[in-house]
Amino acid sequence: MKQAIVARTDIGMGTGKLAAQVAHASLKAYENADSDAQRKWTSGGQKKIVLKGAGQKQLRELADRARQERLPYALVTDAGHTQLEPGTVTTLAVGPGPENIVDKVTGDLRLY
Amino acid sequence: MKQAIVARTDIGMGTGKLAAQVAHASLKAYENADSDAQRKWTSGGQKKIVLKGAGQKQLRELADRARQERLPYALVTDAGHTQLEPGTVTTLAVGPGPENIVDKVTGDLRLY
Repeated sequence: MKQAIVARTDIGMGTGKLAAQVAHASLKAYENADSDAQRKWTSGGQKKIVLKGAGQKQLRELADRARQERLPYALVTDAGHTQLEPGTVTTLAVGPGPENIVDKVTGDLRLY
Repeated sequence: MKQAIVARTDIGMGTGKLAAQVAHASLKAYENADSDAQRKWTSGGQKKIVLKGAGQKQLRELADRARQERLPYALVTDAGHTQLEPGTVTTLAVGPGPENIVDKVTGDLRLY
């Protein structure tokens, strides 16, 4: 089981901002998972990887593919208090789910 | 309600690595919170900030203070598959908890 979190590289998020948005997506997708997937993932050390996403369009397409694969996912938009315009899509978390299924969605992306 | 996540600046974590460790701490501390704190925090948009920590000693001291304030917290050590030595303390999440109580623990730290 793993979770992949895709963060945009094209909007100039600072390190702390990016980390907070990654954590936000991670927790929201976790909440969208069923209890069996939650338990399996956390008991296995909640494996997660952070990947580079090219832009909003790509994140939305990946979210569609996650839905088609019946994986939990969460697309995060920033409230815009700092750094970014309100409503900016920042991150997408896919999973927790079986590694091979998560890889069907995000396997082509590079590590952040 | 908010959660503060402290990440070490002294161990040369890359951006993606740091983001994954922040997310790891965030979710573990969330799991350590009672259901009332979980609900209040998530319904309020799960406010979180990422702060700079100077080293392992500081993170352990902050964890002690969080425990004294009866806040949920989680100290994360890396499994060491990449970049870091196994067992390296990387991040500490404090909260979710009332903002003024979280600030008693982490209020002196700078934003990452």
